[in-house]
Amino acid sequence: MNTEEVATKLAEYCRKGEWMQAVNDLYAKDIVSVEPREMENMPAEMRGIDQVRGKTEWWEKNMQVHSAKVTGPFVARDTFVVQFDVDVTDKASNKRMQMSEVGIYIVKEGKVAREEFLPLAQKKE
Amino acid sequence: MNTEEVATKLAEYCRKGEWMQAVNDLYAKDIVSVEPREMENMPAEMRGIDQVRGKTEWWEKNMQVHSAKVTGPFVARDTFVVQFDVDVTDKASNKRMQMSEVGIYIVKEGKVAREEFLPLAQKKE
Repeated sequence: MNTEEVATKLAEYCRKGEWMQAVNDLYAKDIVSVEPREMENMPAEMRGIDQVRGKTEWWEKNMQVHSAKVTGPFVARDTFVVQFDVDVTDKASNKRMQMSEVGIYIVKEGKVAREEFLPLAQKKE
Repeated sequence: MNTEEVATKLAEYCRKGEWMQAVNDLYAKDIVSVEPREMENMPAEMRGIDQVRGKTEWWEKNMQVHSAKVTGPFVARDTFVVQFDVDVTDKASNKRMQMSEVGIYIVKEGKVAREEFLPLAQKKE
């Protein structure tokens, strides 16, 4: 698959909430996944599909997703961007959050080789 | 300025339609600017602030901007992303177009050192 085909499939899976299916179908074994910061016991940068599956399991187990709006993909060359606006409740704290972020994805040999997430900057007055 | 400060300023300039001011204030002299494809007589990749000023002049001279919605910035580490939804008329052809794209920006030493634009993928049935 070329970059646009991978990008379109990833956006489709995310729209359906099939996060793990996206990883299983589209991610390279040596995927590098970079979050804005470390979370709980997870480092910001993870390497390898097993670590990314672990993060996705954690997400599916700990978050109740009320809605997820997926914008994109935006595609050029080996890169694509998807914007996520998600409304979730953290089951442990029962805290409901609206989160906006984009993912920047790099495709190599038909698989996602790198993903990096950037949160919406907080507005300052 | 750190990445978030540069990002916030750039988004502000773009919201006000002050494209050239953004370049003059925020761009590194050796900026690398990458469009999805070459346009008219301009290559996809441009280097140096003079070439980028030339592109911005071309844009301001040739496009009548009816509206420009700017979403973001999304920021992490040395990178930020801004989404643009613009409604413009190409003055030469009198063709009105709605364009959605994201820019991925890299900040070095308080200046934008690289920008890369990715258009919204066309939906296929």
